[in-house]
Amino acid sequence: MPLHYLDNAATTRVADTVADTADAVLRAHYANPSSLYAPGAQSEFVLSGARETVAASLGAQPGEIVFTACGSEGNNLAVLGAVKARAAWADHIVVTGYEHPSVQNPVAALEKEGWRVTVVRPDASGHVDAGALVRAVGSKTALVTAMHVNNEVGSILDVAALAKAVKEKNSRTAVHIDGVQAWGKVPQRLNGTAIDSYAVSGHKIHAPKGVGALYVRRGYNLAPVFLGGGQEQKRRPGTENVAYIAAMARAIERMLADGGRAGRIAALNKTLRDALAGMPGIVLNSPADALPELVNFSVEGVKSETMLHFLESRDVYVSSGSACSRGEASHTLTAMGLPKSRVDTALRVSFSGESTPEDVRALLDALAEGMRTLAKIRR
Amino acid sequence: MPLHYLDNAATTRVADTVADTADAVLRAHYANPSSLYAPGAQSEFVLSGARETVAASLGAQPGEIVFTACGSEGNNLAVLGAVKARAAWADHIVVTGYEHPSVQNPVAALEKEGWRVTVVRPDASGHVDAGALVRAVGSKTALVTAMHVNNEVGSILDVAALAKAVKEKNSRTAVHIDGVQAWGKVPQRLNGTAIDSYAVSGHKIHAPKGVGALYVRRGYNLAPVFLGGGQEQKRRPGTENVAYIAAMARAIERMLADGGRAGRIAALNKTLRDALAGMPGIVLNSPADALPELVNFSVEGVKSETMLHFLESRDVYVSSGSACSRGEASHTLTAMGLPKSRVDTALRVSFSGESTPEDVRALLDALAEGMRTLAKIRR
Repeated sequence: MPLHYLDNAATTRVADTVADTADAVLRAHYANPSSLYAPGAQSEFVLSGARETVAASLGAQPGEIVFTACGSEGNNLAVLGAVKARAAWADHIVVTGYEHPSVQNPVAALEKEGWRVTVVRPDASGHVDAGALVRAVGSKTALVTAMHVNNEVGSILDVAALAKAVKEKNSRTAVHIDGVQAWGKVPQRLNGTAIDSYAVSGHKIHAPKGVGALYVRRGYNLAPVFLGGGQEQKRRPGTENVAYIAAMARAIERMLADGGRAGRIAALNKTLRDALAGMPGIVLNSPADALPELVNFSVEGVKSETMLHFLESRDVYVSSGSACSRGEASHTLTAMGLPKSRVDTALRVSFSGESTPEDVRALLDALAEGMRTLAKIRR
Repeated sequence: MPLHYLDNAATTRVADTVADTADAVLRAHYANPSSLYAPGAQSEFVLSGARETVAASLGAQPGEIVFTACGSEGNNLAVLGAVKARAAWADHIVVTGYEHPSVQNPVAALEKEGWRVTVVRPDASGHVDAGALVRAVGSKTALVTAMHVNNEVGSILDVAALAKAVKEKNSRTAVHIDGVQAWGKVPQRLNGTAIDSYAVSGHKIHAPKGVGALYVRRGYNLAPVFLGGGQEQKRRPGTENVAYIAAMARAIERMLADGGRAGRIAALNKTLRDALAGMPGIVLNSPADALPELVNFSVEGVKSETMLHFLESRDVYVSSGSACSRGEASHTLTAMGLPKSRVDTALRVSFSGESTPEDVRALLDALAEGMRTLAKIRR
């Protein structure tokens, strides 16, 4: 078990009470929620309760929640389904230059199929200009898709304002938001906004890998991609993962009930940022107003993977870029236009509600030791 | 907890040791399998082990297994991906008339998009003529898709022979098999056959709901539908559900290690069929050579749902049609051309390795009682 796990943007430890919920539901409620007898109805009841909890956490109605297997599925369904439903009149997509691969790659595939794509890149500070996204919207724009919180540097976008401005420009343009890194961290009530869809994932909030949800605004025209037995309002076929869905509901409930969470993480963030500011050779890549959970920085002269493995030898776990890109050069930092030397030496530290001052202390000690040791090796 | 659960084609109880595996992996291996440090590699190691087990159970190589969230996802990916990869030259799909909705509905959607579709209906005995499927294949046929075992009546198709004959007719035609009801029950080594893809699901073999696998033959051209972080050979994005994947591997291992399973189920099948044969007013819908796990029959004059709920009152759980269609008229029996009176009174009994002679006895007693009681009410 990792001692100082500071890679919570990649995935999180499954909380004990969340694992307890998954286990209890797995053993007790095995009947198919679509079955007509009482045990089936009991499974459906567990599902409904979870749907209400997840909906409430997003300021949404239960009927607006489609359970998925992960954030990537939600993003793909939202992007492909929005475009499919608008293919009769639209030919254009607007996207930021630092999206997760599960948005970036489907959009790239659509471009190959003939869709025009406008990519709005982040600036060097890590921010995407919402105004530029809106200006790109034309009469034939099917979709604007953007991250709520960037998964590598933590920049936050005002997605409600973005959606409002997009609709003022073209009321038929769909707005999808990848909310995977924001859920439970950046308060956002979706009802009352012009956001059409919003993807979240369980395993970023101490629930298991293999479950997520997609908010689909009531009345929003989203074409399904996969078809089958009519589950999830015919938007996502397949027998529902009752146990993990219940576990995810438990996880978001637990997270939102932890009133001290934001304060603890802000303090960890301050400690880390203050210490890094005093370390020569370290430069921050996260903007000053980034999500406090996420701190991205570069270590002059030491390749990301080298430092990552040194920190690992001291039981401190961070990442280079995002886990999903498996050691490829960070595409967010590249999109920000940072020099290669900074991209190649970047580390991402990400906190959760379980992170402690000891974790930060261990990280800082190991980082300082690593910089000394690895610098010596280089000479 | 259902006392006499005889609806194992809808879903199965999660076996204790399987739930134990899920729980242990969930708590111990939370690191992202794509992460570069050792705990990530440990998660990846758990994943590889499961991949080997699942591959071996299908007579396939580990690199040919794509983990999915369910059978429905596997079927959709296989159908849509096969057609997408052949759109440049093909315009035709061949399908049986009794497929699961997760095959039937995507094919129907493709037909609306302009694909020609040939539907080969089962005969009144519940069999699909493989020869008719092959005869329908032409120079522009992208895909032949068929069930290995029908989920309502249990008819078994010789899918290896079908695939061979299809390829002889048109070597470019893809062959997808829905193996959800066959996995672990009908021995089938996929390597060495001409089958291109084969979908299975965990929750039909005492693993949790929310995990499945798709066999994709090495060298087979299957276009991905969802794109993202490159997991599962770029065929299925999203952080892998390590715990459930390990649990599914444990479940198929356990099932195949149970040497007495087939014999026990054959005996249950015989007891049930012999008893039903002696009950006036009952007529079998499953063919004589159906999968022994599945027995479908009609009860003269008593609607399926009425009898289903009567049996439930005696703690016996069966289904009318399949769970996925939630009480709609059985589409397999309708496709077989059975009269409405027989379709509306059909019940499906489905055994698993956990089913007992007491379950069959309880079913038969309740059925006899139900026929007496409900007949009285009708008069």
